[in-house]
Amino acid sequence: MTFDILQKRVHQRVDALLQAQINTLDEHAPRLKSAMQYALLMGGKRMRPFLVYAVGEALGGEQSDLDAPALALECIHAYSLVHDDLPAMDDDDLRRGHPTCHIQFDEANAILAGDALQTLAFDIIVNYPLSDFANVQRIELVRILSQASGYDGMCGGQGIDLESTNKLISQAQLELLHSKKTGALITAAVTMASVLCPSVSDESKMLLQQYASTIGLAFQVQDDILDVVGDSKTLGKPQGSDQEQNKSTYPALLGLEGAQAYLAQLHQEALQALTALPYNTQVLKSFTDFVIHRNH
Amino acid sequence: MTFDILQKRVHQRVDALLQAQINTLDEHAPRLKSAMQYALLMGGKRMRPFLVYAVGEALGGEQSDLDAPALALECIHAYSLVHDDLPAMDDDDLRRGHPTCHIQFDEANAILAGDALQTLAFDIIVNYPLSDFANVQRIELVRILSQASGYDGMCGGQGIDLESTNKLISQAQLELLHSKKTGALITAAVTMASVLCPSVSDESKMLLQQYASTIGLAFQVQDDILDVVGDSKTLGKPQGSDQEQNKSTYPALLGLEGAQAYLAQLHQEALQALTALPYNTQVLKSFTDFVIHRNH
Repeated sequence: MTFDILQKRVHQRVDALLQAQINTLDEHAPRLKSAMQYALLMGGKRMRPFLVYAVGEALGGEQSDLDAPALALECIHAYSLVHDDLPAMDDDDLRRGHPTCHIQFDEANAILAGDALQTLAFDIIVNYPLSDFANVQRIELVRILSQASGYDGMCGGQGIDLESTNKLISQAQLELLHSKKTGALITAAVTMASVLCPSVSDESKMLLQQYASTIGLAFQVQDDILDVVGDSKTLGKPQGSDQEQNKSTYPALLGLEGAQAYLAQLHQEALQALTALPYNTQVLKSFTDFVIHRNH
Repeated sequence: MTFDILQKRVHQRVDALLQAQINTLDEHAPRLKSAMQYALLMGGKRMRPFLVYAVGEALGGEQSDLDAPALALECIHAYSLVHDDLPAMDDDDLRRGHPTCHIQFDEANAILAGDALQTLAFDIIVNYPLSDFANVQRIELVRILSQASGYDGMCGGQGIDLESTNKLISQAQLELLHSKKTGALITAAVTMASVLCPSVSDESKMLLQQYASTIGLAFQVQDDILDVVGDSKTLGKPQGSDQEQNKSTYPALLGLEGAQAYLAQLHQEALQALTALPYNTQVLKSFTDFVIHRNH
């Protein structure tokens, strides 16, 4: 199966399962429910779910066991975008070419939809049907998710980001920021998938971690580069917004060419980690190329 | 032990344990960490933890097993207050006589601190040391917490509240709103405590649920009454703010005397549920009186 077809399949599966989650919610707060649905289903690359399925399938996991972490991670990711777009944060009106949640609804419902989506992530992890084998790992899945989402992970990375705006920070600080802000959830996708697969060796786990942190970083470097060289229409958000907000980025720190060279280096490191794994990692290799070469 | 001494003991224990949680966070985002600490430790009645300990101890649970749900519920409660106080929500500058989190810090860190506190609640439930008996219930604790916090519970109640502002709603709708917005966490305190205690009969569980939903409702009715008859200094927030914001309240719906009569009725119902329980519920009776007669 080609990467494109697989990506489309993941997209359809995730959309259908997220819609099913929304459908289970009753109608007591219809505007909030709509805001949650909007935030979850307005598009997106479904990169974290893709990683969960690609790693899980390479390592011999059951696809039906992989749904819970795939959906939960997407709920956390969606909530973080809704809150990041708020006027008090990045104040973005457009996301993926559509009005952001607080523009489409209102700020109060956007804050609340984000809150409820975070809870939904944990709800899914503890309630989703799992095989007996995977069920034993349920608590471990909650541990990985909470560690990756909170102060030690994504929220902490966003906190560093807030404290770094209008400051020149070092490359080490920028990497810490991104390893938490975007890296933590990407690593969690790989870790959650691997705990749901039988007998993964410690060495493989280490290589997978290494792959995840490299690809997470590469994703961010490319994101920063696209903010300089991309166009708003393809990006679905205004080009140049990082610079406008005086954010620390790789092009700002290393220059555009320096950032592009760094991206090429990370690309190689990610592929090396995959090559060393004793599994068929063809899909993950295509995914890696996609992350590096994407134009939105 | 008198109720006052017990309440003070719970307060001290919860404060110390929440501070210990904050102390485990490293220093990568100091402003966010401070905002989380501020939100958790700026005071409050610690009503949900009190209920966890009081019910747990009445039913023969281990105090050390009760810490995890007590702290987790307080994290959820604290995050909800931070987000409710935001300019886009209730726009409150004062809470418990202190500047609200977004006034003391800024809106972005207040949003993020709320987000990270929600995650911390789940983190505590899955990582806190528990006895072997209680450890078996860990997943059930996460289930109760997520159900009570999300769209089906607290967030959904806040969603109904947003959709009810500037509207006259029925008493049934108002009770649904509060059963979710404040009732869900109060009920979760009782339910979490009872699953951590050995061999609680189904009848006792039913009576405890009944007690929890009645006391949750009574708490809200008294809250609404205090907004009319209390004074801002004792309340630690501006008196009359519900009316100013055109919120649906019991005094608005039933008149002040009607609301007071309803509160007296709920008081009796709560005490009846306690009396029917085959446990020593003296502490819970004192707690019930406190909830009804409190002046802040």
